[in-house]
Amino acid sequence: MKARRVYADNAGTTALSKTALDAMMPYLTESFGNPSAIYSAGREAKKALESARATIAEAIGARPEEIYFTGCGTEANNWALRGIAEVKAKNGRHIISSSVEHHAVSHTLEALAKKGYEITYLPVDEYGLISLDDLKNAIREDTILISIMTANNEIGTIQPVAEIGAIARERGILFHTDAIQAVGHIPMNVQEMNIDLMSIAAHKFRGPKGMGVLYIRKGLYVPPLLTGGGQERNRRSGTENVPGAVGMAAAIKEAVDNMDENVKKVTAMRDRLIRELLKVPYSRLTGHPEKRLPGTASFVFECVEGEAMVLTLDNAGISASSGSACSSASLDPSHVLLAIGLPHEVAHGSLRLSINETTTEEDIDYLIATIPPVIEKLRAMSPLWEDKLNEKS
Amino acid sequence: MKARRVYADNAGTTALSKTALDAMMPYLTESFGNPSAIYSAGREAKKALESARATIAEAIGARPEEIYFTGCGTEANNWALRGIAEVKAKNGRHIISSSVEHHAVSHTLEALAKKGYEITYLPVDEYGLISLDDLKNAIREDTILISIMTANNEIGTIQPVAEIGAIARERGILFHTDAIQAVGHIPMNVQEMNIDLMSIAAHKFRGPKGMGVLYIRKGLYVPPLLTGGGQERNRRSGTENVPGAVGMAAAIKEAVDNMDENVKKVTAMRDRLIRELLKVPYSRLTGHPEKRLPGTASFVFECVEGEAMVLTLDNAGISASSGSACSSASLDPSHVLLAIGLPHEVAHGSLRLSINETTTEEDIDYLIATIPPVIEKLRAMSPLWEDKLNEKS
Repeated sequence: MKARRVYADNAGTTALSKTALDAMMPYLTESFGNPSAIYSAGREAKKALESARATIAEAIGARPEEIYFTGCGTEANNWALRGIAEVKAKNGRHIISSSVEHHAVSHTLEALAKKGYEITYLPVDEYGLISLDDLKNAIREDTILISIMTANNEIGTIQPVAEIGAIARERGILFHTDAIQAVGHIPMNVQEMNIDLMSIAAHKFRGPKGMGVLYIRKGLYVPPLLTGGGQERNRRSGTENVPGAVGMAAAIKEAVDNMDENVKKVTAMRDRLIRELLKVPYSRLTGHPEKRLPGTASFVFECVEGEAMVLTLDNAGISASSGSACSSASLDPSHVLLAIGLPHEVAHGSLRLSINETTTEEDIDYLIATIPPVIEKLRAMSPLWEDKLNEKS
Repeated sequence: MKARRVYADNAGTTALSKTALDAMMPYLTESFGNPSAIYSAGREAKKALESARATIAEAIGARPEEIYFTGCGTEANNWALRGIAEVKAKNGRHIISSSVEHHAVSHTLEALAKKGYEITYLPVDEYGLISLDDLKNAIREDTILISIMTANNEIGTIQPVAEIGAIARERGILFHTDAIQAVGHIPMNVQEMNIDLMSIAAHKFRGPKGMGVLYIRKGLYVPPLLTGGGQERNRRSGTENVPGAVGMAAAIKEAVDNMDENVKKVTAMRDRLIRELLKVPYSRLTGHPEKRLPGTASFVFECVEGEAMVLTLDNAGISASSGSACSSASLDPSHVLLAIGLPHEVAHGSLRLSINETTTEEDIDYLIATIPPVIEKLRAMSPLWEDKLNEKS
C-alpha cells in the first residue's frame, strides 16, 4: 500500500476547519477592534463577539448570557471547580467526581483536597462507566458539587450524563461536566441534561487553539478566576479574543449542523477500524463497545510499549497517541487504564486512534494495513512476547 | 481636510502586524500539531513553541525557561499576584503596589485583601509617578511583594522600574511589574531592571489577542493558577496555543528590532499632537511630559464629557478612548486621573490618543485638524462651559 500521512490524533487536537479560519480572517486583519471600546470599530468587534456567543449557546441548548469565553478548556475546568468550591464552601466541602477524569479536573480536585475539600472519586467498571447507584450512595449532606466528564479522552466512554444531571438536580447539588471531548461530536443539551456548568475547548472540534468556554447556568454565581477589566459581565477579565471566539462559533456550528451525517460516517469508520485491529492477537478494545465517542478507537496490545508503537507508527506516516496527549511527558501508565482494571504492564501497551469527519476510508485502509505489522515487528523484539509465546505453547 | 479613518487607540488594542499573521498562518493551517504529542507533527509544533519562547526571552533579556505562555495579560497578572501571595504567605501578607495600576492588578489585589492580605497603595504625584522614598518607607518585615506597573495604560507615565527593582532586590523582596503597555514600545530588560516577574500581552504590540506571557525569574516557584495536563513545565496547563505563541514572538521581534526607529518616529508625532492640542483652551496634558510612552498622548479638556468626545470623534473617523478601554463600561471617573489629583468633573473630560508605528503624519494632521473643532462644538452645547465663560468674564 502506498505510504500516506494519516492524522489519527483528533482527540489530542484537530486541524482548524477552513470554515473557522475563513470566519476568523477578518478579525485577524482589518476588524481588530477591542469589544470594550465604544467607538464603531469596538462596537463591530462586540457584535461579532456576541454573535459568536449566541451561536455557541444555541449549539448546546444554552442562552447566550450563560456562555463565558476563556483561554482554554483547562481554564474552564479550573474556574468551574475552584469557583464553586469557594462560593459553596459555607454549605460543605465535599465533591464527587470519577476516577477517570482528565487531569485538568483531577489535578484541580487534588489542589482543592489540599485546601481541605474532600473528594470522592467514583470507581468505574471495566468499560469506564460510573455506576448511578454509586453516585447516589456517595451523596452526603455536605456535597456541594458533582463533576463527572461527559466522554473520556483516552477510551472514549460516554457517561450517562442526563441521568447524572437528573440525580444532581433532584438532590439539589450542582453538576459540572467536562464535555471537552464530547461537544461537537455528540449531541449535548445543557437544559435537557440538567447541566449547571460545562467546559468546552474549541480545538477539539476544529476550532482554534487558545479558546474555551465555560457554560454557567443562569442565576448561578461563580466567582471569577481572573479579575481585572471586568469583561464577560465581570466574570472573566482580559481583552476578548474576538478571532478566537468567532472561529470557535463557526467550528461548533459546522460540527452541529453536520452532526448526524458525521456521527454516522465516523462511527462506521471507527467500527471497521476496531473490528480489523481486534484481529491482532492479544489485543483488546478499551472503553465501552457502544457507549463511546464516534471517533475514538482505543486498544491495548499486550507485550508492546505504547511509546514505541507511537514512534514506529509515526515513521510509517501515522499520528496516534498512547494514553492522553496531555500526559505523554509522563512515564506512569494512564490512570484511566488502571481505573478500568488493566494491569500495569498491559496498560503500557495502549494505542488511541482518534478520527473525525476529515478522515477518509482510504485513511482507515492504511491504518488497518499498517498497524498490525508494526505490532508484530515490535513484539518480535520483545522478551515479554517471547515469554508469552512460551507460556502458551 | 478630506475625511479619513484614524485609529488612535493602540493602547487599547492594536492591529495584528502582517509579519505576525504571516508567521501564524502555517500553524493555523497545516502545522496544527499538539506540542505535547511525541510524533513528528507534535515535535514540529513543540519546536515552533520553543523557538517562540526563545525569541520572546531574548526581547526582554530573559532566558527561554523563564517565559511561561498564558491566555492573556490579565491571566499573567492574576497568576503572578495570586501565586506569590499563596507561596509567600508564610513570610508575610503585605504587598506594596501603586494607586494607578490597571484593574487586572488592582482588582486582584482587592481580592487578596479580602483573603487577609494587606495592600499598601503608594500615592503618585501630579504626573502619575510614585516616589522611591515612599516605596522605601512602605517596606515592612512582612512585605512579600512589590507590584508596580512599568507604564500606565491611561496616561502613559513610565515608572522608575530599574530603581524600584534595585530597592526590591536590596531588601530581598520580590518585584513584579505589569509591563503590558511597555513591552515592544520601550526597552525592557528583566536582568538589568532586577525584575522577578513581568506580565506581557501580545495584542498591545501588534501580536495576536488571547496570548500573554508571565516572565518568572529562574529559581522562583509560582504555584500554577491553572492545573491539569502539566504543560509549560507543569506551571500552566492547557493545550498550548502554538499559532498565538508564534505570532507573539514575531510581533515582539519586529517591535524590538525596529524600536529605536519607532520610538523616534512615534515620539515626534506624539509631541506634535500634544503641542497642537494643548492650544485648545482649558486643556492639559495628563501624565509626565517626558517620562511617558512614545505613543500615548493623553489630555483632559474641561467642560467636555469624555464619552461624548469619543462618540463625536468616532463620527469624524477617529477611534480614541476616554479613560482605559477596559473600564469604558463604567461611569465612574478613572481612578488614575483621580490619583494624579484631578477633580472629578475634570477627570470626566479625558481623552487618550494612542498611536504607534503604523500611524502616519497625515493621521496626525487629521487629528490636529479634527479634534479642536469637536471640543469647541461640544462645549458650545454645555452649560458648564457657559458658566466657565461667565466666571472668566
